[in-house]
This record gives sequence, C-alpha cells and structure tokens, in this order.
Amino acid sequence: MEKDISQAVIRRMPRYYRYLGELLDEGVERISSNDLSNRMKVTASQIRQDLNNFGGFGQQGYGYNVQYLYDEIGKILGLDRQHNIIVIGAGNLGQALANYTKFEKLGFKIVALFDVNPELKGKSVRDIPILMLSELDDYCANNQVDIAALTMPKSKADSIAQKLVDLGVMAIWNFAHVDLDIEKNEDVVVESVHLSDSLMQLSYNIVKNSK
Amino acid sequence: MEKDISQAVIRRMPRYYRYLGELLDEGVERISSNDLSNRMKVTASQIRQDLNNFGGFGQQGYGYNVQYLYDEIGKILGLDRQHNIIVIGAGNLGQALANYTKFEKLGFKIVALFDVNPELKGKSVRDIPILMLSELDDYCANNQVDIAALTMPKSKADSIAQKLVDLGVMAIWNFAHVDLDIEKNEDVVVESVHLSDSLMQLSYNIVKNSK
Repeated sequence: MEKDISQAVIRRMPRYYRYLGELLDEGVERISSNDLSNRMKVTASQIRQDLNNFGGFGQQGYGYNVQYLYDEIGKILGLDRQHNIIVIGAGNLGQALANYTKFEKLGFKIVALFDVNPELKGKSVRDIPILMLSELDDYCANNQVDIAALTMPKSKADSIAQKLVDLGVMAIWNFAHVDLDIEKNEDVVVESVHLSDSLMQLSYNIVKNSK
Repeated sequence: MEKDISQAVIRRMPRYYRYLGELLDEGVERISSNDLSNRMKVTASQIRQDLNNFGGFGQQGYGYNVQYLYDEIGKILGLDRQHNIIVIGAGNLGQALANYTKFEKLGFKIVALFDVNPELKGKSVRDIPILMLSELDDYCANNQVDIAALTMPKSKADSIAQKLVDLGVMAIWNFAHVDLDIEKNEDVVVESVHLSDSLMQLSYNIVKNSK
C-alpha cells in the first residue's frame, strides 16, 4: 500500500507529527480534521487525503485520537526505533548537530563525530566522542551505524559517501552543497539539506515581494 | 509574467544555478538541454519547461549560453544584489552559518550575530561581531538588514520574529523547529530549514527501503 505514496505527502508528515506532539503537550485527546486544519493552515480535505494514504485513522464525526495518530505517524516515519548517527566533520555544523538534544528524543542518537583535524582528537561534544577519520573503518565494523551526516567540504563528499556505503552505511544526511554520485545507487537513501538553495529561495521571494 | 510561477519551479532554480556554475568553472560555454539533462538527471523537457517560465533563454538547435543563463537565473533568484544578514543566536549553528564563506560569494553577507549570553559579548566569528540582543534595536536603526536568520530556541522564535518585523526586517530564515506566527503576514518572507523534518524524511525512506 505504501509504495505509491508521493514524496510530497511524506514531506508533510513530519509537520503533522510536530503539531500532534504539541497537542499532546497541551493535553488534547481528540481533534477534528477541521480544528487540525485551522491550526495547521491546510485544508481539512488535504488532511483527510494525506492521512487516507495510510489507511485513514479518523472515525467519521469523532475526529482523530491524538495519541493514536501521533504514534501511527511516528511508526510510518520510522520513529519507533533508534537510528544511530555518525557525523563526518566536527566543525561548527557537525558540533551543532551533536548539540541538538531534540534529535535524540525522536530516536536519532548521534554516537560519534569524525574529523581529520588532529587538534580535535580525544575531544567530545556532550559526551559524544570526536574520532579521527582514520578510525572510521574500525568504528563501523564494531558499532551499529544507521545514518551518516556529511558536514565536511563538498570536495570530499563523494569519496566519503562511497566509503560509507562500502562500510555498510546505507543512509546519508548530506549537508555538502553537491548532489552525491551515490544517489544513483537505489539501495542508498540520501536526504540533502542545501542551505545555499534555501537562501536563494528566500531571496527570490524577497525580490518578488518587493515588486 | 513571474507571478504565476510555482514554488516547485522556484525550488529547482538554485540547482540549475549550481550546475551552471560548475559548467562555467569547467570552461563550458554552451550546453544543449539534452546534455544539461544528462548531468542533472532531469528530463530535457522538464528543463525547457522550467526555463520557459522565465521566457526561455535557449535558441533552438544552439543550446544555452552557459554564462548568460547563469547570470539570468542569478537575477531571477535575486543574486545580483547584496543581502545583509544578521544571525540571532550565536551558538554552534549560528557560528556555523557565519563561517560559511560561500554565502558571501552568492551575495549573502552576514554582518552581525546576536546572543543573550554575556560571555559572547565582544567576541567575533571571521571578523563578524557578536553583539548582545539588547543592541538589536540600535543596530537595525543604523544598519541595512535584509534577512534575519533565527537559530535560537523555538520558545523565543515568535517574539523575536515579531520584533524583527517591527524593526523593518521583512525576511526571516528560520531554523527554529516551529511554524512562525509571522508567516501569516504576507509582507514577510519566511524560509524555514526544519532539520528534524529532514531527518524524519530520511528515516521514512530507510524503513521503506528495508522492506
């Protein structure tokens, strides 16, 4: 059933998850698609359509059970398990990622950072060790690694991504400003965060708004 | 003409710009939509359709002039002017943004960081000063600020975003994991980078790929 779900729908699911989490924090147990629609500024029919992709969850006239829907979307998003993340590049961005405690609450546990800078050897961020890139093979052989976040310069991104896949890490969270060669490999999952692209999108809308 | 262009098309433009920049670096002067299609892994007809939104640029049978297309897309994206950015929050992420020299090459100049931590007072990142949040009003009154990047905790995001708009900063690059109230204001441009959402998207695809 899930195979036909578009990435556009999937891209909206984390936002549902976030809003449902806020409702839970507020003690709300049940919500109609209309009320959820008002909060999220999307149409109620969009919400019903999106959730119907996964078989519904709502009961006509009774709205959604917030906890149930939250848990089910969590399962769809793979948040019912722990994902161990290593971060390649322990510069500001790598350390910023390691400092986000929220990722851990969602089941994404950063277990190690890697860098080539010998000055960082033996240091740690929030008790997460910074290791040398030369230790990567050993580390991957002896530890479960589910995701690698790439925060080092783009000139190194392709070779490191290939190395990671050779070591069995089949999911890449890419911050390097380049499309990775490895994206051609269908067994590898790549999600890119292109900060420059996001800035350009912003400046396009600035120009458009000023007209 | 531009008013009907979908955000989906706009989201693809930075990627064109990036590939055209790489072609220029390689000394390529002219490229057919087929060759560009092969490089970018999108169909040639998609490329032609996307670029036709802005009036074309190609000449039947001659392909695209790379420099011309690069410059024109740059103008569309508002890269033919300088955008001054302030960063609210001088933690790891704020400092990581300030350290990206690439943004500057694209015309996005980070001019100051702001924080509430008195230990950061008087410090700087790449000669970009870290100022105290209490200095924000004065700074905005005396300097051109086009974009504010929000990298502080989400509990403060809405109040600071509103304050920035009151100070005349009409574009927000939001890294706080929340939809800002200010997005309701049509005069304000908001572009959000939700890192947790990106991780969830990744884990969805991990689960799907493992089935």
